[in-house]
Order: sequence, then C-alpha cells, then structure tokens
Amino acid sequence: MRRKEFEMMDIGEIGQFLHEMSFGILGTLHEDGWPELTPLNFVYYNNHVYFHGSMAGQKMKNMKADQRVTFSVAKEYSVIPSYFTDPMLACPATSFFKSVLIKGHAEILSDLAEKAAALSAFMRKLQPEGGYAPIDPSDPDYTGQLKSTSVVRIVIHELSAKYKFGQNKPAAELEQIACQLRERDTELDVQTLAMMEAYCPHHRKK
Amino acid sequence: MRRKEFEMMDIGEIGQFLHEMSFGILGTLHEDGWPELTPLNFVYYNNHVYFHGSMAGQKMKNMKADQRVTFSVAKEYSVIPSYFTDPMLACPATSFFKSVLIKGHAEILSDLAEKAAALSAFMRKLQPEGGYAPIDPSDPDYTGQLKSTSVVRIVIHELSAKYKFGQNKPAAELEQIACQLRERDTELDVQTLAMMEAYCPHHRKK
Repeated sequence: MRRKEFEMMDIGEIGQFLHEMSFGILGTLHEDGWPELTPLNFVYYNNHVYFHGSMAGQKMKNMKADQRVTFSVAKEYSVIPSYFTDPMLACPATSFFKSVLIKGHAEILSDLAEKAAALSAFMRKLQPEGGYAPIDPSDPDYTGQLKSTSVVRIVIHELSAKYKFGQNKPAAELEQIACQLRERDTELDVQTLAMMEAYCPHHRKK
Repeated sequence: MRRKEFEMMDIGEIGQFLHEMSFGILGTLHEDGWPELTPLNFVYYNNHVYFHGSMAGQKMKNMKADQRVTFSVAKEYSVIPSYFTDPMLACPATSFFKSVLIKGHAEILSDLAEKAAALSAFMRKLQPEGGYAPIDPSDPDYTGQLKSTSVVRIVIHELSAKYKFGQNKPAAELEQIACQLRERDTELDVQTLAMMEAYCPHHRKK
C-alpha cells in the first residue's frame, strides 16, 4: 500500500468487517487476457474465503485454467463534499471507505464433507437465524445438491486492508468534516463518525 | 452470460444504475500475474467510464504496462433466506442483485481541457448540489491540480449487465418471496419488490 496512514493491520477487525459484508468481487484471469470480475456472496472462515456457484460458467473455467484469484470486499461510507473543508475548489471532494484485498489460489473442493462444512459456515453467516436442516452429506436430500454445486476455497497468500477515514488530514480539517457529518446526520454519516473516532488519531485527541 | 433470463439489455436503465452507484471495482493486470482490484468512485459519461487518482500507485503502473481493464459495479438487494420457499433445505438461499461488467482499454488523459471536462462530470454526479468553482484549466487555482492528478478514461469494448430478481423462478415461488419481503419490509426489501415487479414477467402478470 502506497499511503501507509490508511493501512489496517488489525486482523480481528478485518475479520469482523468480512463477516459484516455479505458480498465481494472475485477477480479471475480470462483467457481473452482481461481480468474477469464476478460479484458473489462469500464467507471468511478458518482463514480461507469460500464461495459457491455452478460447475458451468466462466469463472469456474477461468479458475481451472489459472488458479490465481483476487478478492475485493469494499464498503463506501460517507461521500465527503469539497465544501466541507473548502468553499472554493472541488479538489478536496472524496469518500471514506473500508477495503480489503485478498490474493490467493482458488481450490475447487471435491470432498463432500469439506463442501458441507464450508456451506454450513456460509449459511451461518448469511442466514444466522437458521430455518433449514443441517447440511449433512449423508442426508439424501443434500447429497445430490452437494455433488452438483461447486464450492471454492481461496487459499490466501496476501491479505491487505485500507481504511480511509481522513487519517491523512490535519486535526482542524478533520474536526470540520466531523461537524458537518453530525449536521447532515444520515445513517451512513453516523457510522462514518464512529470510524473517524476509531481510526483518526487527531480526532481521538479531541 | 450463461443464464439468459438475467441478462439486462436496456442501456438507458444500465446508465441510470451506473449514475446511482457512486463506486465500482477496477480490475487491472498486475505484473505478479494476479488480477489487481481497486474500489474507486467513477462517472459514466459520454459512453466512457472516467475515474481519477494519483500518478503514483499500483493501478497506474498496471495500466501503463497493460491497458486491458475490467470494471464492475454491483449492488446487492435483498438476501433471500431459504425458508422463504423451502421449510427444509438450505439450497434455495440466494440474494438478488444488479451487476454491470465493463471490459475496455484504459487511456490516461493528458489534455487539461479533457481532464477538466471529465472531472466536471464526476463532480456533477457525486456532488450534484454544487458548492465549488467550475473546474477550468485556465483558472490558476486549478491548473496545477489538473496537471498533477491522473484522469483515466475506459474506452468500452464490452458492456454487459445481469439483474437477478428471481426471473428463473416459477410464478408461485416468486409470489411467496414477494409476500415475505413485504412482511420483512426493510428499506432494501421495498426496493427489491419494485425490481421484482419491473423485471419478473411472472410477477408482473399478478
């Protein structure tokens, strides 16, 4: 990461963010030479990223040909208009966000018990209220489905996170932004203020 | 696209969606062989995608070495729990979404007037309420900034869109989902119901 002030190293916090976010974008390498991007639901579980999909389809074809994949999970917080800090120029306009980037190798699971464990973690995350029979490979209602669904594990080589909440700004400017976010007061602004509080040392000192 | 029922061809609607979404994920090719993903604010303007950034940084380096880029803009609507349609199995759990995928070539702009026009479109989108002096390359307050900011245009070769709102489901199942969304009634569920109404022929017949 070029701007070190935005780097997030707290793996507990990163895990929590990945748990809160239901989808991310998978980058694979298409044979046409372009990166291929696919939005998908995922779970970060036992230090791996898991997702599922059909056996057919372009992303499976890409991963079979080249296992190198990148996975991006990003949430945009408040858009910060230029006039929050500058009455004249458009330049300070920006937005605050969290972004996690994972590079790794995609492994297509074949063991039914492994597939069931991954899909169970996936369901615990995305449907925490339950309401379904446990995913058991020996349950005949699930066996066929488990066989026909692809489950992919990303073995992570590199995980980095960028949290941008104004850490590069002087204290006075940050306080100006905070003031105006408190005034604008959307649901996202409230969340953004909590993040500025957590991640901006200048702001924390106030 | 493999599943034709999800394909969205209405370029007016796609443009509207790109206008509503403030950020997307840029895929470039990193020299390490992995796709590189970068979340960024953008504007879709005059049939191109524009974004800006620092001259330094990995994505600029990637695009200078290889112009092939992919851009993904996705919005997740409601997560649909399995028990909306099946009291037993986890399998029907899914989520509804809009996803636009663009493949093209990245051109780094050098002409200051072109950069100013692109950044003006960017500001009109992300700060429609105004509150800044027009971005004019002959304005000495802007000239230096325009010179030191990279503005990139994606010349689009391929644009496709997938809108998934249950078009693959039989009418009865779709009505079950709609009923439960009306009951759950989150802000996103209200949006999802409007999209089901717009894009599901079964549902429309009701």
